[in-house]
Amino acid sequence: MPVQFDPASGTRDFLAAEYERREWAFGVLREVFSSYGFEPLQTPAFERIDVLLGKYGEEADKLVFKILRRGEHEASGEADLALRYDMTVPLARVAAAYAGQLPMPYKRYAIGPVWRADRPGKGRFREFTQCDVDTLGSVSQLADAEVLCAHHDAVARLGITEFTIQLNSRLVLAGLLEVFGVQADVAPGVLTSLDKLDKLAPAAVTAELAGRGLPEATAAELVAATTAADAEDRIRAALKRSDVGLAGLDQVDELLGLVSGQVPAGRIMFAPRMVRGLSYYTGPIWELVAAGAVGSMGGGGRYDHLIAQLGGPDVPATGTSLGVERVLAILRQEEITSRGRLDVAVPVLDDDLAQQSFALAGAARAAGLRASVYLGGSGKLGKQLRWASEQGARWCLIFGHEERDAGTVTVRDMDSGEQESVAADEVAEYLATEYASG
Amino acid sequence: MPVQFDPASGTRDFLAAEYERREWAFGVLREVFSSYGFEPLQTPAFERIDVLLGKYGEEADKLVFKILRRGEHEASGEADLALRYDMTVPLARVAAAYAGQLPMPYKRYAIGPVWRADRPGKGRFREFTQCDVDTLGSVSQLADAEVLCAHHDAVARLGITEFTIQLNSRLVLAGLLEVFGVQADVAPGVLTSLDKLDKLAPAAVTAELAGRGLPEATAAELVAATTAADAEDRIRAALKRSDVGLAGLDQVDELLGLVSGQVPAGRIMFAPRMVRGLSYYTGPIWELVAAGAVGSMGGGGRYDHLIAQLGGPDVPATGTSLGVERVLAILRQEEITSRGRLDVAVPVLDDDLAQQSFALAGAARAAGLRASVYLGGSGKLGKQLRWASEQGARWCLIFGHEERDAGTVTVRDMDSGEQESVAADEVAEYLATEYASG
Repeated sequence: MPVQFDPASGTRDFLAAEYERREWAFGVLREVFSSYGFEPLQTPAFERIDVLLGKYGEEADKLVFKILRRGEHEASGEADLALRYDMTVPLARVAAAYAGQLPMPYKRYAIGPVWRADRPGKGRFREFTQCDVDTLGSVSQLADAEVLCAHHDAVARLGITEFTIQLNSRLVLAGLLEVFGVQADVAPGVLTSLDKLDKLAPAAVTAELAGRGLPEATAAELVAATTAADAEDRIRAALKRSDVGLAGLDQVDELLGLVSGQVPAGRIMFAPRMVRGLSYYTGPIWELVAAGAVGSMGGGGRYDHLIAQLGGPDVPATGTSLGVERVLAILRQEEITSRGRLDVAVPVLDDDLAQQSFALAGAARAAGLRASVYLGGSGKLGKQLRWASEQGARWCLIFGHEERDAGTVTVRDMDSGEQESVAADEVAEYLATEYASG
Repeated sequence: MPVQFDPASGTRDFLAAEYERREWAFGVLREVFSSYGFEPLQTPAFERIDVLLGKYGEEADKLVFKILRRGEHEASGEADLALRYDMTVPLARVAAAYAGQLPMPYKRYAIGPVWRADRPGKGRFREFTQCDVDTLGSVSQLADAEVLCAHHDAVARLGITEFTIQLNSRLVLAGLLEVFGVQADVAPGVLTSLDKLDKLAPAAVTAELAGRGLPEATAAELVAATTAADAEDRIRAALKRSDVGLAGLDQVDELLGLVSGQVPAGRIMFAPRMVRGLSYYTGPIWELVAAGAVGSMGGGGRYDHLIAQLGGPDVPATGTSLGVERVLAILRQEEITSRGRLDVAVPVLDDDLAQQSFALAGAARAAGLRASVYLGGSGKLGKQLRWASEQGARWCLIFGHEERDAGTVTVRDMDSGEQESVAADEVAEYLATEYASG
């Protein structure tokens, strides 16, 4: 494509097939979330800049697209608005704004674009769809179980079969750090390093931990405990020496119990070293990992104080974010039913037949079929049949002078090439019946 | 709402009911356009600034939201991107970018937000949904007829019954000006004044025309001809003295003929003084006017050179823009089916029943119903029944210790208050059957 016609860096045009594929997926997501009683929320593309900035730290602020003031203020070079960076800050604003109107707990989902000025790389976009499911105002583990199951169901309903859910709790991690005597000041760094055990060799992680100020023996023990074949048993045993660790284990086990009937066996597992980056989580955390895929298909957890930190009311919260772009990327094209553009194509064989041909298409539409007349200049039937075939039409309604004089239409089955003569005023019914019978 | 929690000026939050109403409408629109073989297109929210600016003139440029450069360039105060102002400039870019991949003629619709920094007034927004249907690459009047009928069908299918379509042609207007001897330099102003005849008294428009340099006698004749009881006849007769006028009449009559079978009689009428503002139209033009509503519900026409002017290929084009925000504003709420949030509400009567209660909700979901457990703290049945009722649930599944011991569930019909005891493992089937039978 000539460069000047490219969409802006990191953004995409969605032509028909890709658009339909995405809409299909979003429709599945809406249906799944709605089946749990989550309700939709849509907020504006941009927020006042003070609502957005300073909420996630300097690094995130750098990635926000800022909108220049307008009119006489444009020359100031200042921004007063910014494109939303995620769905959570708008949720906090909405929770504060409509406190009296929203049901409590407020169970909402949001599917829509967010914008981040990341350096666009392979499979990374500056405009991408975010899909969040959250419950505000419930401390119940049932709320965690619901968002987790909804996330699971959504991915499964999209046709992904090979994936697992890693479940952990921030309390388990806190207990682990306590048991291994890790000081609070190095704790975040230690968790970051532990999280790398999926990618780095144990020895490398041990070295990194030591580099962070952990005594070498402790580092080695911690890595050994979390990577051993019997890691889960060893960690469960170790956590018994910590109150917070025990509470974390209880959280994990209770959640495993709640979802056990609704998530296929083996799909969800306790992953005691899974950290799930963001520090705002306060309870259970989870991550969906697809077999063979790079990175996760999203995840979430409980974040009881974040909404207040973001400027909203102080409500407990739990939620999950589905990596819809990643899921779409691994969905095989053929899993999505693809129809042609039209069911019925109507050639226009002569100018003086245009009105009646147009009316035939209208009759087919009135009968519930997708139909269009030929809009090109050529009156040749062969060319128009090729067009009908390109449109994926199942039928072609041939209406020439002969048909007009006889009051009929020649209905051509585009697959078999068979043609049948049908009375003009019965064509719509004929097609509707054929269509209904498959 | 506290000011600091307002959405940014001119933008809106859509909570569940309004979101569903809008999604329902967009779904209807997609279905109608698709029934004509129009295919969807989605382009990014922002474009490179050079793609957007300078296309519609200075006035429009002032209304564009510009995005500040990022990183080290932010301090420059310069913008390199801008939010899309309409759907037509992106269409021109797409037509140029994917020339080889797009079917020709390219029939596409686009429904999505656009952003304009208008001073927000009553019923005017800075973020609003635009809905465009266009065909590129066909000079056929059938293409005009299609977009016009699609627009009509969309409005009708949304439940608006009281509306008319004013049809005219730029060639009719050109002929009118020729016949009345209006010079080219004052022509645009004369058309602008004529367009005011709906709002201003004829004498006022005559004065305005004279002020624009039209001889007073000509001004009076022109106004008389276009406002007389037999205006259409008089104008038809006058246009016979102009070649371009005659060509315009042919366009109008041919289009009236094409759509006559598909648009109810009396809904579409020749409106020889309807100007439809924008100067880029080159052929037929139309506008949908709702009874009693302020302004139009959109309109369109043929614009054969605009796509090239906007930076796209030089293709003939025709299209229509549906005023979806206006249509949504006059749609009565009750015309849209509204369901409760849930079909099935499941109280949680004790902590030790949480897992089984959660599983009951899961079973109901697996049977195709929307179901949720109670997420609050209280174990009191009365409070939980109130919650079920607020959710609009049709059934409440009561599962206490008694039911657990008996292996049953008490199914409460929330409308009648009647309760029935059902075996726990048959509840899903029971509900599915009840649901299917209405």
